[in-house]
Amino acid sequence: MLSDEERHQGRAFKPENQIIEVISENSKVLIYIDEHRKFLVKPHMKRRLETDRGIIDLENIIGKKYGDYVETTLGVKAYLLKPMLSDFIEKFRRVTQVIYPKDLAFIVFKSGVSSGSIVVEAGTGSGVLTAALAYYVKPSGRVYTYEVRKEFIAIARSNIKMAGLENYVVFKNKNIESGIDEKNVDAVFYDLPTPWKLIDVAYDALKKSGVLAVFIPTMEQLLKTISALREHKGFINIEAYDIMLRRYKTIPGEVRPMTWAVSHTGYMVFARKILI
Amino acid sequence: MLSDEERHQGRAFKPENQIIEVISENSKVLIYIDEHRKFLVKPHMKRRLETDRGIIDLENIIGKKYGDYVETTLGVKAYLLKPMLSDFIEKFRRVTQVIYPKDLAFIVFKSGVSSGSIVVEAGTGSGVLTAALAYYVKPSGRVYTYEVRKEFIAIARSNIKMAGLENYVVFKNKNIESGIDEKNVDAVFYDLPTPWKLIDVAYDALKKSGVLAVFIPTMEQLLKTISALREHKGFINIEAYDIMLRRYKTIPGEVRPMTWAVSHTGYMVFARKILI
Amino acid sequence: MLSDEERHQGRAFKPENQIIEVISENSKVLIYIDEHRKFLVKPHMKRRLETDRGIIDLENIIGKKYGDYVETTLGVKAYLLKPMLSDFIEKFRRVTQVIYPKDLAFIVFKSGVSSGSIVVEAGTGSGVLTAALAYYVKPSGRVYTYEVRKEFIAIARSNIKMAGLENYVVFKNKNIESGIDEKNVDAVFYDLPTPWKLIDVAYDALKKSGVLAVFIPTMEQLLKTISALREHKGFINIEAYDIMLRRYKTIPGEVRPMTWAVSHTGYMVFARKILI
Amino acid sequence: MLSDEERHQGRAFKPENQIIEVISENSKVLIYIDEHRKFLVKPHMKRRLETDRGIIDLENIIGKKYGDYVETTLGVKAYLLKPMLSDFIEKFRRVTQVIYPKDLAFIVFKSGVSSGSIVVEAGTGSGVLTAALAYYVKPSGRVYTYEVRKEFIAIARSNIKMAGLENYVVFKNKNIESGIDEKNVDAVFYDLPTPWKLIDVAYDALKKSGVLAVFIPTMEQLLKTISALREHKGFINIEAYDIMLRRYKTIPGEVRPMTWAVSHTGYMVFARKILI
Repeated sequence: MLSDEERHQGRAFKPENQIIEVISENSKVLIYIDEHRKFLVKPHMKRRLETDRGIIDLENIIGKKYGDYVETTLGVKAYLLKPMLSDFIEKFRRVTQVIYPKDLAFIVFKSGVSSGSIVVEAGTGSGVLTAALAYYVKPSGRVYTYEVRKEFIAIARSNIKMAGLENYVVFKNKNIESGIDEKNVDAVFYDLPTPWKLIDVAYDALKKSGVLAVFIPTMEQLLKTISALREHKGFINIEAYDIMLRRYKTIPGEVRPMTWAVSHTGYMVFARKILI
Repeated sequence: MLSDEERHQGRAFKPENQIIEVISENSKVLIYIDEHRKFLVKPHMKRRLETDRGIIDLENIIGKKYGDYVETTLGVKAYLLKPMLSDFIEKFRRVTQVIYPKDLAFIVFKSGVSSGSIVVEAGTGSGVLTAALAYYVKPSGRVYTYEVRKEFIAIARSNIKMAGLENYVVFKNKNIESGIDEKNVDAVFYDLPTPWKLIDVAYDALKKSGVLAVFIPTMEQLLKTISALREHKGFINIEAYDIMLRRYKTIPGEVRPMTWAVSHTGYMVFARKILI
Repeated sequence: MLSDEERHQGRAFKPENQIIEVISENSKVLIYIDEHRKFLVKPHMKRRLETDRGIIDLENIIGKKYGDYVETTLGVKAYLLKPMLSDFIEKFRRVTQVIYPKDLAFIVFKSGVSSGSIVVEAGTGSGVLTAALAYYVKPSGRVYTYEVRKEFIAIARSNIKMAGLENYVVFKNKNIESGIDEKNVDAVFYDLPTPWKLIDVAYDALKKSGVLAVFIPTMEQLLKTISALREHKGFINIEAYDIMLRRYKTIPGEVRPMTWAVSHTGYMVFARKILI
Repeated sequence: MLSDEERHQGRAFKPENQIIEVISENSKVLIYIDEHRKFLVKPHMKRRLETDRGIIDLENIIGKKYGDYVETTLGVKAYLLKPMLSDFIEKFRRVTQVIYPKDLAFIVFKSGVSSGSIVVEAGTGSGVLTAALAYYVKPSGRVYTYEVRKEFIAIARSNIKMAGLENYVVFKNKNIESGIDEKNVDAVFYDLPTPWKLIDVAYDALKKSGVLAVFIPTMEQLLKTISALREHKGFINIEAYDIMLRRYKTIPGEVRPMTWAVSHTGYMVFARKILI
């Protein structure tokens, strides 16, 4: 354990950490004009960005720093932000119903995943949960993600690459019903229609005390999943949740929850493997 | 970028990862009898655990593996789980109102924190948010946490140590009103009564495009924080949320949301630093 | 007090209550094809109803009974339901943001309104709350509703007439800031932008122990209303609420909360008048 | 239809409506000291009310008016409020899990019940829903309530009497499985364990286009009820809901949702009878 003194000399004070991140041809940039005008760009891939607030010549953002701004041809300020995981996910190409941040965050937290974790996921879908898992297991961990539909893998792969997480994900074009190749994994994540048929498959792949996390939209699926887990006997600490997120308008004088909200995406079930 | 082939040979298959974790004198163990009987122990610190389901001689769990079980003197099975962040937090000694997992998870997600992040927090309080942050910035990141009350630091420090996260946290017995020593940090977290007075302090410490995250319980605090952020002009993408979590009973035939729930702990505000 | 025996002979058994309601030229009918195809009609006002499930000749529904059905020209069953308050409100012409059933129901309940109550409302807006109040105070009660904009009164009046509640409502094209004509009323309802400026006005009109109910969308309005009530000293039992309603899909095998929901329409405040 | 002029002469202006309600020996009074000290009393039944804020000699409240106050022996103001339905329900003796106001209000609203309605309920339980129904059908309507357990009827009867609603309720110590005596009723309400077995019973009692309302706590019950309604074919417009109510602290400077809330009591299902 470091002494506070040692830690006090920690990274934040070493010049090499004072890196001022300069935007290059290959940098990913979130161009932020306002809440409704956010654009994810890579200078070398696009010449100009056309918006209803004016045009931005992307040549001009090269050499700028994150947090700086440029002006559009209409003189509107456009801020150059460093994209976060949530920005990338927002811009993912979606071919399936996806899991929302409110649930992604809770699934990651309850599954105990962190840097170095080895996890398995099925199905990959659009790669939203894949990206969240990869983001938290990096750099030394891995996400093994199973998907039967080749076309989904292609889309998820390009989404993951866009988020810069491709080094932490292994895509597998396999049906998980025939088993999980990886063993002794820290956690297994199911986002598929019939998780209750795959409890054994997860059990075999998990390390003891490892976590199974299941995401399902309907009550029927929730009841079947809970029953299957209880009958299997190989899991304890079986918990189920759902989350409602309220987003507030942040204009002084008008602060209130947004009128409409996503009221439901799915139920989450968590359980831990024990020795049978 | 690794080829899938290379990654396919990834960690999960190397023997050194097949470590079977054996419980030693110094292991932390979550002894799980049922939802209402979970005990966090360290064999060398305790001789015997007495419960209303019987006694467990902790000598007997040494040499067992996580996921195994022992029987109490009354013949009840007690499972030996590897504690997760959420288990530690549940057992933290609390001297302040703390942030709940539903909010911790979302705060971590929305702030973009991950392995390697350098972050600042104030106040430390019982160390619950500190622990969550340390858990996700490890191993190469750091959490610098400010707290004026020495006695809170002592408690938070022992909580953090219990969770095995002491190498990633720097405790500072300072009033953050006099400024943040660290500069160019990835994110700043405020869990204190008057965040609206400390917008400048956060602005100076944050790297450009970095995130300020604020947690406050009341509407008055929310409105003042939003107004201060708008007036400061140094932040954009100002978002506010609160989360409702529903936990479900997981006994087949009785599945329903728990009757009572924590309906509110606080509002969360997020904003990103820009060049003024 | 009646004996159970007397009551046992109660209305439900007298033939005059066995009235089989026959649909006439002037009956209001909710033509129900499915959840997305509900039409409120009055035979003598319309010749034919054209839908994407076929045409209905409204002549043909005269003489039918509520609960019966007719077939469209495409052979689809169209059920003839007796419209309820909630059906009428759903079909009201809306010129303002309206209060939703989840809130209407709670406002009525908490204000203690029932058959015979004399209540005052401002502003009338589209007449949704007006209708709900009229529905519960009928037949002997009255709703006095104040509205400054003549055009809104016209619309509300036609909405109220459509719902058959015109005998229980008195429309007043007056600015309530200049006072409430009625005195000793059972309850006062405010659905207007600055209720905190009108606490005195409500106080003067209310009978002692009467209820003031306020509906406001934003946090700023909620805080100002609460403060004004506390400072006025003429009200106690000050309570504030908001309601989230989850609607579930009712197709077996697909039961789940609807994905999107109205997350917020407004906050409700209730208080009771006392002697100062 | 009355002219506005006629209505303008309406009740609120006639002296007989200016009745100043004087508290008599038999009046029911809600003695309100603060949110946590509310007492429902009837002067002739009690000599003195002892509270931790002092004693009140109930003789002294006779002759006072609602909204007035008396002082306790410790000089604390105690306000004399006219009890509302919600006050009575709060003080009901409870022998069963009861339905909460948030749900009572919505059930009444969605069922279309109002003054004059003839409705049937099973089971009576503690009489909370019975009271809400009686309150809205009065004076000319009736609630026929079925309950198999004699002891519950006795308790519900005394609760209903306390609320002054005994003239509008017929108690029946019968098992509803053997059928509903009343026919052509406006609505049927089920608050019992196996409503899906009683769809036919409700169908036979309801008038066409009448409403069946079901309240059940668990998901399994909700799914069975929905399936039974779909299979029966005699009901359309099948809707299911649940409601979350947030109560806010109303102390200026501390306004926020209460930390703990009743997160779930039950699911509500509504359907309308059609001709089969």
